[in-house]
Amino acid sequence: MKRILLSHGSGGKAMHLLIKNLIVKKFNNKILDELDDSAVLSPTGDNRLCFTTDSYVVNPIFFPGGDIGELAIYGTVNDLSVMGAKPLYISCSFIIEEGLDYDILDRITTSMATAGEKTNVKIVTGDTKVVGRGMADKLFINTTGIGIIAEGVDISLSKIEIGDKILINGSVGEHALSVMSAREDFQTSIKSDCAPLWDLISNILPIGGIKFMRDPTRGGLATVLNEISENKNYGIGIHEGDIPITDEVSAFCEILGFDPLYLANEGKALIVVSTDTADSVLREMKKHPLGKKASIIGEITQENQGKVVFETIVGGMRIIDMLTGEQLPRIC
Amino acid sequence: MKRILLSHGSGGKAMHLLIKNLIVKKFNNKILDELDDSAVLSPTGDNRLCFTTDSYVVNPIFFPGGDIGELAIYGTVNDLSVMGAKPLYISCSFIIEEGLDYDILDRITTSMATAGEKTNVKIVTGDTKVVGRGMADKLFINTTGIGIIAEGVDISLSKIEIGDKILINGSVGEHALSVMSAREDFQTSIKSDCAPLWDLISNILPIGGIKFMRDPTRGGLATVLNEISENKNYGIGIHEGDIPITDEVSAFCEILGFDPLYLANEGKALIVVSTDTADSVLREMKKHPLGKKASIIGEITQENQGKVVFETIVGGMRIIDMLTGEQLPRIC
Repeated sequence: MKRILLSHGSGGKAMHLLIKNLIVKKFNNKILDELDDSAVLSPTGDNRLCFTTDSYVVNPIFFPGGDIGELAIYGTVNDLSVMGAKPLYISCSFIIEEGLDYDILDRITTSMATAGEKTNVKIVTGDTKVVGRGMADKLFINTTGIGIIAEGVDISLSKIEIGDKILINGSVGEHALSVMSAREDFQTSIKSDCAPLWDLISNILPIGGIKFMRDPTRGGLATVLNEISENKNYGIGIHEGDIPITDEVSAFCEILGFDPLYLANEGKALIVVSTDTADSVLREMKKHPLGKKASIIGEITQENQGKVVFETIVGGMRIIDMLTGEQLPRIC
Repeated sequence: MKRILLSHGSGGKAMHLLIKNLIVKKFNNKILDELDDSAVLSPTGDNRLCFTTDSYVVNPIFFPGGDIGELAIYGTVNDLSVMGAKPLYISCSFIIEEGLDYDILDRITTSMATAGEKTNVKIVTGDTKVVGRGMADKLFINTTGIGIIAEGVDISLSKIEIGDKILINGSVGEHALSVMSAREDFQTSIKSDCAPLWDLISNILPIGGIKFMRDPTRGGLATVLNEISENKNYGIGIHEGDIPITDEVSAFCEILGFDPLYLANEGKALIVVSTDTADSVLREMKKHPLGKKASIIGEITQENQGKVVFETIVGGMRIIDMLTGEQLPRIC
């Protein structure tokens, strides 16, 4: 078995071979081929750029429905997408633990290449560091993305108004539970929802009335809703019965004592839409494979300023606060 | 002593407070204040953008002359600078080991903020992950930068021609040895050369004739020279006597058996310049605090195609190959 050595991070021969074979070949594009330390980009015209970064430390690096490489591409693609930015370029930086199987890195970079092709983003620059055994846990990946925001698109918390509807494109909690099941070796058929959202979002943007979008990853739906309610003088009302959730996720949460509202998702967008276009946006979302279970889950309210109020199916009410403490570390 | 907990990476309350207090306050700019997952940028006009990424894993995180935070800013600023790109925006992503002193993170983010101010770059977006104790070594930082390349500037390996001169702005080897002395607790006054190069480079670019630049970090001068010679059908001749090096670095290398040509630098640029402007560029460099010891160290030659030939002071010749294996891991 071929393993990663410290010399693969030395800046010398071993590193050059690794980069050539595992990275440049696969992420195949002319900008990366230059092998400069930086990439030169020429996005068109005067459009605004969107710039986002995430480091991925998910444990384990392979989980039902995905792996750290795919997650690193889709996660960054989604951060751009929810800003209304068409994802164009991604940088990719690896921190590798000495001794990692070469084959594992090979599988991960293949998975990243495939994810890049699917989403039509180019991986144009990168970096590789190797640290000694026990100084990192197998593999961490940073991806940083650049996207372009078309004229007229303006996604911002400040645009949200009382009466706006809150939508989500599908069921919640699957990513977190899939990672946990892989980590703890539970028997379940739950798969990560890890998926790229730009295609879906680019279909609904032209309809208009889209005020704000965010992907509920770490901290889940509850955290995003709290971020929204914190920023303005309004409340948020959420209807439990309208949140899409699979029976299996419900059952698992009940057994393990998790609240699905706090669980990470990797293929979901929470979208705030003006009342007059909410139905059209919902209809368009339902046409897309990633929006079949889309739903209006609540609205921006005049009452309960600064609070997220959750109406349970049986008619009860509870305040959904931000997560305190850590429910599931290293979920992404 | 306040320590970093897993909950500081949860996406919840603890993480929000940490980001507010240690990051947003210090990296003080309007784009970051938005606290979106992405930053919206509006660089002017049709200029080409330069995009670069690096993860910093230097051990120890404080060393004579700098720390991992300063290094992460200057390193990425320099990667942009050697492409002829004015550094504008930086993203910053932390991977933190659970249990890290809160004060250490505080010092590092202060150091990054200062480095950002000095170089006039804005840290506009970021990410924070916390992994369990023993799953990372204290702190890793990824910085990804965007710069803008002015019209007419075209830095590229493909422009190098036989006869071009090779310049460096100062003495080599200090960064690597300073990190090593901190790691091994050696007594030495050697300090890292960690410094931002844009100011120096922006002074020489208008002179013209600058074909290629690269900062000789990991793998040192030898690796950059080999990257140049690999890409073209020419040779490279380097004169030992013209390479600036301090007595202390020389002495240390002799004792420890290191070759200074392979040692990492963090405030140096290797510059390939056409014969007719080389002297003017050298004169301009010498006016700058970071270029006082600038020197023409060699030239692009017709003979010895694909090889880097090193003429020693005593008149001997040796081929300088790329580094094989690892001399000093985790130097940056």
